[in-house]
Amino acid sequence: MIEVIKRQTGAAFRLHKGQKLRVIDPNGEQVSDMVLFNAKDTREKISSGKTLDFEESILISQGDHLWSNRSNKMMEILEDTNGRNDFLLAPCSPETFQIMYNNNEYHPSCFENLYTNLEKFEIQPDDIPTAFNIFMNVQFDTKGKLSVDPPLSKAGDYVLFEAKMDLIVALTACSAEDSNGGTFKPIHYEIID
Amino acid sequence: MIEVIKRQTGAAFRLHKGQKLRVIDPNGEQVSDMVLFNAKDTREKISSGKTLDFEESILISQGDHLWSNRSNKMMEILEDTNGRNDFLLAPCSPETFQIMYNNNEYHPSCFENLYTNLEKFEIQPDDIPTAFNIFMNVQFDTKGKLSVDPPLSKAGDYVLFEAKMDLIVALTACSAEDSNGGTFKPIHYEIID
Repeated sequence: MIEVIKRQTGAAFRLHKGQKLRVIDPNGEQVSDMVLFNAKDTREKISSGKTLDFEESILISQGDHLWSNRSNKMMEILEDTNGRNDFLLAPCSPETFQIMYNNNEYHPSCFENLYTNLEKFEIQPDDIPTAFNIFMNVQFDTKGKLSVDPPLSKAGDYVLFEAKMDLIVALTACSAEDSNGGTFKPIHYEIID
Repeated sequence: MIEVIKRQTGAAFRLHKGQKLRVIDPNGEQVSDMVLFNAKDTREKISSGKTLDFEESILISQGDHLWSNRSNKMMEILEDTNGRNDFLLAPCSPETFQIMYNNNEYHPSCFENLYTNLEKFEIQPDDIPTAFNIFMNVQFDTKGKLSVDPPLSKAGDYVLFEAKMDLIVALTACSAEDSNGGTFKPIHYEIID
């Protein structure tokens, strides 16, 4: 069954070891930030530093694993029809809009949408690590200069993950203008037994 | 006064807002992993994802700040005589040597040297974030492929930081063969009022 994450919102749910998760960009050019926690001990969580180290790549896609801070495999990426994801940048937060865009008014953010959905699992805002940003198109040159460009994903593109341990998963439909070319769109997901 | 971190060890100490920290590579080609915590609330800590986002660069050097998971400035880099540091890879851990080097015997690691020195501040192994890896030379191409090369630092190279809040700082003299060209050397540091 396809679940819908409405524009500028999020979701959190359990995913059992062996289950698959398909994250779908239904309209194209939208980003979904994903964080993972070990369902049996939420102090074990997804780690960008461990994943980039073990996969020896900044760009993480089909065939790679998402690793935890305890050096365990949390997910395997079975399919990735778009092929571009980001694992460098923190989820957009209220401060992102203040510091980078001089926007001091309330702005929905992936950070808020992650921690409010994770409250029911007793996960606090300070526990949110750098997310795996599905479909996010962060370009870099060999001098390290970063730019956030519109996603390359087309309508219907998806990434299919398999859980390698019992997980708590949180996902967003990204709230940052820069990440999705100024549009706010939903994200769809599907859990497959 | 120059403090010495012996080969394959670490240190942790307080650094007050406004104090400066000079981290020195006394012999050249050695790496020092550094993690930072807010001394008043250690749930606030250094964040690679926030730093790369706000500085819009993978490579962090003179003029940049090190940011926290709560989007606050923790340190400013005042001087960097070498200019190459890494903020992508997690500190080497026992699992690094098992998974990447097939070494199943005991091996000292930056991760162990960070958490054992941070115990006195009631900081646990799971609290260790991705470190700012001073002098570490991680090369990448535009396809994201990573390689850990010997440091470019020469004897006497240093990075000078200024604390922007009261901090707990942990530093290592790196234990990984790949990070320092197969040699194990000390790191020196100096706190300047």
